[in-house]
Amino acid sequence: MEKADWLEEVYSHINAAFESEHLPKILDLVRQPSVAGTGEGIDECAEKVMELLRSVGCVDVHLEQYVKSPVVVGRLNADVENAPGILMYGMYDVQPPEPYDEWIVPPYEGARIDFENYGECIVARGIMNSKGPLVCFLNAVDSIRKTLGYMPVNVLFVVEGEEELGSESMIPFVEAHKEEIAKLDGVFLNGARQDEQGRPAVLLGNKGTLYLDLEVTGGEWGGPQKIDLHSMNAAWVGSPAWRLVNALSTMRQGDDILIEGFYDDLKPLSEADEQLTRRFASVFDEEMFLNERLYASRFLHDMHGEEAVRKLMWTPTLNIDGIWGGYTGPATKTVIPYKVQAKVDVRLVPPLTADMMLEKIKKHLNKHGYDDVKITVRQSSPWSKSDPEALACRAALMALDNSGYDQGYAWPIFPGTGPAYLFTQRCGVPFVSYGLGQGGRIHAPNEYHTVKGLRENEMSCAAYLYYLTKLAHEAGQ
Amino acid sequence: MEKADWLEEVYSHINAAFESEHLPKILDLVRQPSVAGTGEGIDECAEKVMELLRSVGCVDVHLEQYVKSPVVVGRLNADVENAPGILMYGMYDVQPPEPYDEWIVPPYEGARIDFENYGECIVARGIMNSKGPLVCFLNAVDSIRKTLGYMPVNVLFVVEGEEELGSESMIPFVEAHKEEIAKLDGVFLNGARQDEQGRPAVLLGNKGTLYLDLEVTGGEWGGPQKIDLHSMNAAWVGSPAWRLVNALSTMRQGDDILIEGFYDDLKPLSEADEQLTRRFASVFDEEMFLNERLYASRFLHDMHGEEAVRKLMWTPTLNIDGIWGGYTGPATKTVIPYKVQAKVDVRLVPPLTADMMLEKIKKHLNKHGYDDVKITVRQSSPWSKSDPEALACRAALMALDNSGYDQGYAWPIFPGTGPAYLFTQRCGVPFVSYGLGQGGRIHAPNEYHTVKGLRENEMSCAAYLYYLTKLAHEAGQ
Repeated sequence: MEKADWLEEVYSHINAAFESEHLPKILDLVRQPSVAGTGEGIDECAEKVMELLRSVGCVDVHLEQYVKSPVVVGRLNADVENAPGILMYGMYDVQPPEPYDEWIVPPYEGARIDFENYGECIVARGIMNSKGPLVCFLNAVDSIRKTLGYMPVNVLFVVEGEEELGSESMIPFVEAHKEEIAKLDGVFLNGARQDEQGRPAVLLGNKGTLYLDLEVTGGEWGGPQKIDLHSMNAAWVGSPAWRLVNALSTMRQGDDILIEGFYDDLKPLSEADEQLTRRFASVFDEEMFLNERLYASRFLHDMHGEEAVRKLMWTPTLNIDGIWGGYTGPATKTVIPYKVQAKVDVRLVPPLTADMMLEKIKKHLNKHGYDDVKITVRQSSPWSKSDPEALACRAALMALDNSGYDQGYAWPIFPGTGPAYLFTQRCGVPFVSYGLGQGGRIHAPNEYHTVKGLRENEMSCAAYLYYLTKLAHEAGQ
Repeated sequence: MEKADWLEEVYSHINAAFESEHLPKILDLVRQPSVAGTGEGIDECAEKVMELLRSVGCVDVHLEQYVKSPVVVGRLNADVENAPGILMYGMYDVQPPEPYDEWIVPPYEGARIDFENYGECIVARGIMNSKGPLVCFLNAVDSIRKTLGYMPVNVLFVVEGEEELGSESMIPFVEAHKEEIAKLDGVFLNGARQDEQGRPAVLLGNKGTLYLDLEVTGGEWGGPQKIDLHSMNAAWVGSPAWRLVNALSTMRQGDDILIEGFYDDLKPLSEADEQLTRRFASVFDEEMFLNERLYASRFLHDMHGEEAVRKLMWTPTLNIDGIWGGYTGPATKTVIPYKVQAKVDVRLVPPLTADMMLEKIKKHLNKHGYDDVKITVRQSSPWSKSDPEALACRAALMALDNSGYDQGYAWPIFPGTGPAYLFTQRCGVPFVSYGLGQGGRIHAPNEYHTVKGLRENEMSCAAYLYYLTKLAHEAGQ
């Protein structure tokens, strides 16, 4: 017999079990090194993750080997009919802890200390990114099973071990499991976190990226082709540096991108995305963003409020990530550099594809007489977008609204890039990220997570699964 | 009693003494290390130079200490009345010889070998730059004195020991000796060399340089001010990289410099400079320059022949020596760099000054709304220009015309930069450079000079002094 309204009971179980059972499990995993780059501890850590999956009732727990580190897979089958199903995406690898001497505690000790002004924290490699969240989810599942006496959701656990190397294994993994994934209600990442003001968030999408290297060297147009020249020759020989600077300037002037048709294919937002965008804007703290995150005095075009939020979320970008050529030292070497390069990234929003934007950039350069600019595609990642009306998304939004924290908001699309498109574009299932808790310094020394936040993260995982079952019931699944 | 037409006799003396006396003196000096940067051998080398000066009859041989290495000074007084007077500028320091293992002979051995396709050569650090030329001049003086029985020219020897560090001592030296130098007929540098085709050259001037660092960072206009931002923020925050690229592009488009008044103050050439320019153009090998020196398919504006030569010699430049900012590695880091920089040099021709051009650049940037671009002057060297009609210049041109080599030419102004302005602008005396001989790889392993060229260089020094006395007599000095 299925229970209704079980969330408070599960919260109580989490609160009761957290110190004695849950936190020790979290600390046990962060104490196990697992650096994908060197391979240190990867196999041992995968073994521990398998054990954790089995301990909450998973079956068919196994490793799948694709690129480097094995992917840990396990199935937790619901004990009731017509249960909703999700894929829980996690990772067990961590960034290398170096430099060791900048850690105030050993990185693999799992130290519990008062840390800076964050209160009681675990300071350890992986506590935030992402062993803490992985075990928190498992602890939440454990509390649900022990409280209810059964499991109300089907969960396919996929815990990869090379996220920090670019998640290469996930491409063949998803390809191999496409049919199974396509039948699920969604993919859940216990990933979003409360911001500096304590506001929780849900992520329902992310932009894609097209990353290009541009290179100009001497050619038919002029300019030195083989070696840097003494700059006295600038009087009569062309300059690849000026040519690249000129070519780039045709693409953007000030705050305006001038590439023809750059914004042409954008579509109006759905009503649901429109609402989430306005909701975001309503809690958007412009001064905080400018002063504490961006260190900038103003937004592009002097935008404010909702206009700035819309621009951030829903427009493609054209950014210079790097530019270099010639002499860049402290002295005064005088040369005409024969080769000058730039790195440029374009953030893709629906429905733009990398190919579409690359074509527009090439056409633009050709039209302006810069067909000699050599373009190399270095990265091409599609965007991901989940329908806020989908069950898996609505569950996250309900958990957010009932988190007990004010001013929760959603990113209908987050401006960064990630591998979620593997699920949304390739399998057609929503990808959603949510989770309470506060932490930081990922990829840096003294990675931390508040102890309170870990406990509340478990509760937010339970809440997500709770609303998922509730909505599934309402939908008559 | 002064002799007339003594040049052939001196040539004979040089030919007779070269192998037995002159070359050993040259080799003795290149065998003495003298690296200004480390100080290695500097004092010993200065001592050897003093001894060499005394050996050709110099008096008042002494060291003057200004910045780092001492300047060796000596006076060779003419033994006849109304003799012309020159300052012979030389240097006794060398570039460090590293990397040793790229030398085919030890750099301080003074090895005489068949070298590549250059025939019999001395391969040694300093043989070309510039101990060879220094001793060759002294050998020529010695042959003149021994042939004539007297010295027909007053020579003030100034041999510095930190040319490779930027000749800092020469500024206070010239200041201290300004009055004495101003009375001379000119300053001679045994420096120009025959080109790849064997054509000898005279240099009568050089351009100046204004070298600027430009920097753009976030500010009142927008953009991040303190740290590189994740490039997802390009959707709503300004970019110092785009701003620098845009600012630079207002200054030059394609082959055209767009700074207002950039060419305004240029004056028509004197008839003498006009003639030398045309003479240069008449022997100018366009294809050789493009294919073998510049590795470029064409000149700016598709210029050819005399037009290209005029542009090279007589116009100011605006060159990007280097540009850099953000991520420049092999991967795909996505950032908005908060600081982007460029190095720009302007070559100055008469009558342009660094201050004039800096003012024009600042005015231009302000006018286009880029008054936030931070400009740092890193170097400011005036041009040098000698009147081809001056005695010291005419002597060099006559020596050139009678060198026995075809197609000799003069640079009325050389497009590079040097310290000659100290003499021409500060003391008002001509500065001229001339000298036969072929060598190369200066500042690199296997610096070389042909043995034949060293002998002919001595003859060209003798010829210069010969025509100087001849012209002085004709002028009734």
